[in-house]
Amino acid sequence: MNAGAALASVLEAGGPRLAAGLAQVEQRLAVVAGSAGDRLGGHAEATLTAGGKRLRPVLVFLCADEAERDGRLIAAGAAIELLHMATLVHDDVLDAARLRRGRPTVFATGGRQAATATGDLLFSRAFAELAAGGHPDAVRALSQASSALARGELMQRADAWSPAITRARYIERCELKTASLFAAACRLGALLGGAEPSQSDELASFGAGIGLAFQILDDVLDVSGPAHRTGKHRGTDLLDGTVTLPLIEARECDPGLAALDLRAEVTDPDAAQHICDAIAATGALDAVREEALTYVGEAKQVLTRARLSSERHAALELVADGVVERYS
Amino acid sequence: MNAGAALASVLEAGGPRLAAGLAQVEQRLAVVAGSAGDRLGGHAEATLTAGGKRLRPVLVFLCADEAERDGRLIAAGAAIELLHMATLVHDDVLDAARLRRGRPTVFATGGRQAATATGDLLFSRAFAELAAGGHPDAVRALSQASSALARGELMQRADAWSPAITRARYIERCELKTASLFAAACRLGALLGGAEPSQSDELASFGAGIGLAFQILDDVLDVSGPAHRTGKHRGTDLLDGTVTLPLIEARECDPGLAALDLRAEVTDPDAAQHICDAIAATGALDAVREEALTYVGEAKQVLTRARLSSERHAALELVADGVVERYS
Repeated sequence: MNAGAALASVLEAGGPRLAAGLAQVEQRLAVVAGSAGDRLGGHAEATLTAGGKRLRPVLVFLCADEAERDGRLIAAGAAIELLHMATLVHDDVLDAARLRRGRPTVFATGGRQAATATGDLLFSRAFAELAAGGHPDAVRALSQASSALARGELMQRADAWSPAITRARYIERCELKTASLFAAACRLGALLGGAEPSQSDELASFGAGIGLAFQILDDVLDVSGPAHRTGKHRGTDLLDGTVTLPLIEARECDPGLAALDLRAEVTDPDAAQHICDAIAATGALDAVREEALTYVGEAKQVLTRARLSSERHAALELVADGVVERYS
Repeated sequence: MNAGAALASVLEAGGPRLAAGLAQVEQRLAVVAGSAGDRLGGHAEATLTAGGKRLRPVLVFLCADEAERDGRLIAAGAAIELLHMATLVHDDVLDAARLRRGRPTVFATGGRQAATATGDLLFSRAFAELAAGGHPDAVRALSQASSALARGELMQRADAWSPAITRARYIERCELKTASLFAAACRLGALLGGAEPSQSDELASFGAGIGLAFQILDDVLDVSGPAHRTGKHRGTDLLDGTVTLPLIEARECDPGLAALDLRAEVTDPDAAQHICDAIAATGALDAVREEALTYVGEAKQVLTRARLSSERHAALELVADGVVERYS
């Protein structure tokens, strides 16, 4: 099953209410992009309408106990997607990336300055969406996630090329830079959809778990390839000096990898691919995939404690499965 | 009177309540910087504690009718300063600026990636400060200002090197990229300090007026120098392709300037200084300074309609005078 098929199953399980909600999020994103003002908004518009799985808005709707009223779930879905987009636009600036999802990035079409400002604009609009609804708890959840994303990015920069990155440090970074936004999507849905506080915590914990697995599997894919799945060379993380779990695991059984000086030895794509092969040869990729599956399993366990309707429970389990299947 | 003396007068006029509020904003900024986590927070901390006039927090306090309660004005002052700092950090990345206020920028000490993430973190923390207080109107005011800042930056990029920039277009850009934050500072103070809606609007209008004058006078200074006041060469705006009011005015009476192709002809600091001299020779700088003073005068007129205590009225007039005196 590919990612598209997995999402189709989620949509089927979520029923017409989910499909209608997602359609309204798309409309809202188009309005936000248009409101940026004549051609200035063009960069933002291209980014917002470039597709993507809208996985985070899906989580917002599925974590809401009550049906939509007064547009609050749509606003939350749009806000979380705007924040996600903002980080992608800034990441593309930092990586000087010219393509994303097969389309030119804002960096490619508008340059560094327009892309930085576009990212800032998307950040601002994310908060504007939620602020309009007047739910302080929701704004707080978004700002906590937004801070976590930035802290995760700072941590990744601070740790670059360091041979001393532990598994715990790696997990903390993934929690900040990826899991926090999945958790926030679930928390927003729960908060605005009438959940009890304990249920909000459980759903946020579910989101964090699948977000963590999502990032770990993404990091495996960077080592395993194939390049046509990722749209980039194998080992781009290594070239950036980003130490991920596959290397951390592989170091434990390969003295050559344990002694590796990334900055000095991994200076071109060929060298990076060679290290990817060495990591794969240790069997670390399977071990790390298993670890990601463990996090997904734990997330599903938490989900059973959240006392959801069987329909929503099933749909959220499908989202969790979709995260795994995306990488299988 | 220099800027320091003007601020001292404001502090005197604002009394012990203002001084105490500003001291608490400083404490709050230090806490926020510290909370970014061990050495990761170092970049943010250096930025936040680097000083600056804290002009925007001053406006927050002076626009509040009631004394501080539950820390809401301190949170607003910190939020507005965090947002201001976020834009400065991103601007320094875009300009590859290594010094600000005589200190190394985050870009200089941490590099492009850390500086982009630090700016994002400061953005997030700004919203977190306000969200904690649970005032949706305040969050809305901040997000509108934050969107305006980014739109102003995008407009500046889109208009770069264009010979067709009108006065109206220039004023719109200044309103977005500078006046909006001054207006938001006043609106936050008014909203959280118990003002009537009409009074909030008047105070926001006052803030917008002095913010507009602030930006216009800054643009004059870029042409007039002296370089030791600005810390950069005269004509850096021209080198960036940023068309400002002095050039727009000067074009009207100098055919050579009217025919100028910035991109082709202003390619180094010497050429930029030569154009600065040509602009100055038309008398445009005095005309533009007068125009800025007109905006300050209008702002003071609006202030008289806001029915403030004579103490607050006098203090806000001093802030307006300080904006002008900074450039005299």
